[in-house]
Amino acid sequence: MIEPVIKAVPGFSYVGKNVGIVDSSLDFGCIVADAPCAAGGVFTRNSMPGAPIVVGREHIAGGQLQAIVVNSKNANVATGQRGIEDARTMCRMLGEACGIPEKLVLPASTGVIGRPLPMDRIRGAFNGLKGELARDDAAAERFARAIMTTDAYPKWCHARVGNASIAGMAKGAGMIEPNMATMLAWFVTDAEIPSEVLQPMIKRVADRSFNRMSVDTDTSTSDTCVILANGKAGAVDLKAFEDALSECAIYLAKQIARDGEGATKLIELHVVGASTQDQAQRTARSCINSPLVKTCIYGADPNWGRFVMAIGKVFEYPVSREKLRISFGRGAEKKVLDAAVVEAGSMDLKALRALLSGPEVFVEIDLGSGSEAFHMWGCDLTENYVKLNAHYTT
Amino acid sequence: MIEPVIKAVPGFSYVGKNVGIVDSSLDFGCIVADAPCAAGGVFTRNSMPGAPIVVGREHIAGGQLQAIVVNSKNANVATGQRGIEDARTMCRMLGEACGIPEKLVLPASTGVIGRPLPMDRIRGAFNGLKGELARDDAAAERFARAIMTTDAYPKWCHARVGNASIAGMAKGAGMIEPNMATMLAWFVTDAEIPSEVLQPMIKRVADRSFNRMSVDTDTSTSDTCVILANGKAGAVDLKAFEDALSECAIYLAKQIARDGEGATKLIELHVVGASTQDQAQRTARSCINSPLVKTCIYGADPNWGRFVMAIGKVFEYPVSREKLRISFGRGAEKKVLDAAVVEAGSMDLKALRALLSGPEVFVEIDLGSGSEAFHMWGCDLTENYVKLNAHYTT
Repeated sequence: MIEPVIKAVPGFSYVGKNVGIVDSSLDFGCIVADAPCAAGGVFTRNSMPGAPIVVGREHIAGGQLQAIVVNSKNANVATGQRGIEDARTMCRMLGEACGIPEKLVLPASTGVIGRPLPMDRIRGAFNGLKGELARDDAAAERFARAIMTTDAYPKWCHARVGNASIAGMAKGAGMIEPNMATMLAWFVTDAEIPSEVLQPMIKRVADRSFNRMSVDTDTSTSDTCVILANGKAGAVDLKAFEDALSECAIYLAKQIARDGEGATKLIELHVVGASTQDQAQRTARSCINSPLVKTCIYGADPNWGRFVMAIGKVFEYPVSREKLRISFGRGAEKKVLDAAVVEAGSMDLKALRALLSGPEVFVEIDLGSGSEAFHMWGCDLTENYVKLNAHYTT
Repeated sequence: MIEPVIKAVPGFSYVGKNVGIVDSSLDFGCIVADAPCAAGGVFTRNSMPGAPIVVGREHIAGGQLQAIVVNSKNANVATGQRGIEDARTMCRMLGEACGIPEKLVLPASTGVIGRPLPMDRIRGAFNGLKGELARDDAAAERFARAIMTTDAYPKWCHARVGNASIAGMAKGAGMIEPNMATMLAWFVTDAEIPSEVLQPMIKRVADRSFNRMSVDTDTSTSDTCVILANGKAGAVDLKAFEDALSECAIYLAKQIARDGEGATKLIELHVVGASTQDQAQRTARSCINSPLVKTCIYGADPNWGRFVMAIGKVFEYPVSREKLRISFGRGAEKKVLDAAVVEAGSMDLKALRALLSGPEVFVEIDLGSGSEAFHMWGCDLTENYVKLNAHYTT
């Protein structure tokens, strides 16, 4: 139902360009709607949020937004009162350029923490901005590229629901274990949905998608996921819309996990048979975040004992080894490890290595003690994650 | 007071040798006391413990032990009933070789998970074992070397308390975030201390030392920390003994953190000014385990914003950014980052880089909201951690 393409949605204009924040790559973008939109959003739970999060929460509180202004290469986090003023300035200047109230602009910034925004260059971005905004797919593509930091590729998708359409654009590769939020992700739609419906919907959707992935256990100070609905296409079936939006968000979440800094593999992990939802979630996080699980998947090393270790370190929920069942791969190629296989020492390690060798690794853990389930997406841990992050600010 | 040397303690004999479990390196060791000793120990909280942990808990329950038998290169974990029988066989055979009841022997194994022990080779280890046991420092050194897996160097220390002495021997480099226990650590002493005193003491000591370090957030299935006291030197001042034992355990914990797989730096992190002990501990673990903190310390990259992120992701305890104060280094060279420095953008990044460049990095985080404190030891994350662990079983 969803397509892995970038497509403009009627009633929105886009720009993506370079303003020289660090170098000559795209680093500044806006989405501007023709009229005020219903809006919903979720933000990072990090208690040291960036200045744009503080301002963004204020602006979205009224349930309406008309524009988004984003820069990459600098997160405007831990920048004190000056950072807050800089985020407000970005909203005010976009408002002035486009005839929009400052309060209807949501700001976002992503990049290094602890450096003041180079406001001289950012102010320059608003000169002639109105003329640069365009409604076509190419402009939306430039926006999606302008929000990238260490991303290897842009993340986008498109879905149709009745007469309406949804465009999703996201970025993220490192500092990724969102909680009640995500890295930067933007959805625009021409469906007509009031903000009272949109706000709880985007939260449910984020919980099913972005909040189920982890690259490196680190929760960003800038996580933002926002949807704007301009209503141009009229009302839609809300259930169908939420399904399509979830599908878009899950697609983007998987794209982010697959593009985890230095990663070579997407991992999809299902925990089933848990006694409580909390057990299912803790077990999934323990496995998907274990450096020893992540490195053995990188090396396609059939070292299944590391999964046993990661399951066992969820101290709150002791697991019965007789009931535990771990499956690798799916379909006809699935290999199952249970107490009988362990006892007999009969796991086919060569077949297991083959299942761990592809670009997507599927693992199911059945705890055998109940009916609760949870799944997550993650990625392997490679030397390149370390290389990228040992020298990122320099 | 403690010395970083290996010294035999009167009344104990040692052996360390190769029995060919994987290759020709030392892989088998024993400590045998002349008579039954008072014993105390703590073990992994992982709910999938190795077979030796299951048997060891049974044997130490009576408060007495006379011998320890250890192999490296294979953890005897996730090996079912056969693994339990193999651990019992090791105890029985050492007992038969030395005239000791099976129940007074504590078994331990460390290495890969999920492979049956090569019992043909291990059985051979007990032939002529009694004649190989020796009381000298060289024999104790061979024991300490025989328990190594990915360790770059052996870990040992020695302390004197009144007429008595303590020898500590430990191993560990990866799968290290012990909880209520540690990797393998053995202490032998000739002090006279009843097991009712020794058991709570070793738990307190482990909580101050091994339970405050993390290499990679992964809690081993084999963690074991045991002390044997043979009483030959008579009674000692218990407070002085516990202080010396703590000093030994902290020394060994720092040696393990410094030798974290692939690590180049030891990190010592102090959290002060927390409102509760739980906040202090969660904040310390969040920072010491953050891959982004660990990689920036590896690169000596003055990217202090990553500490802000790691402090802020302890969602349970929101932190006031005005009260937060992070210090890097100590003594005259200390650099302090607080709200005023952030606001003014006046952190000296070159000086910060210098403080992150040495083999030991010291960080203090003052949360400014109470009087609780906690400290931990950790290490940086490098490409070599990934290399070592992507292909460990092969």
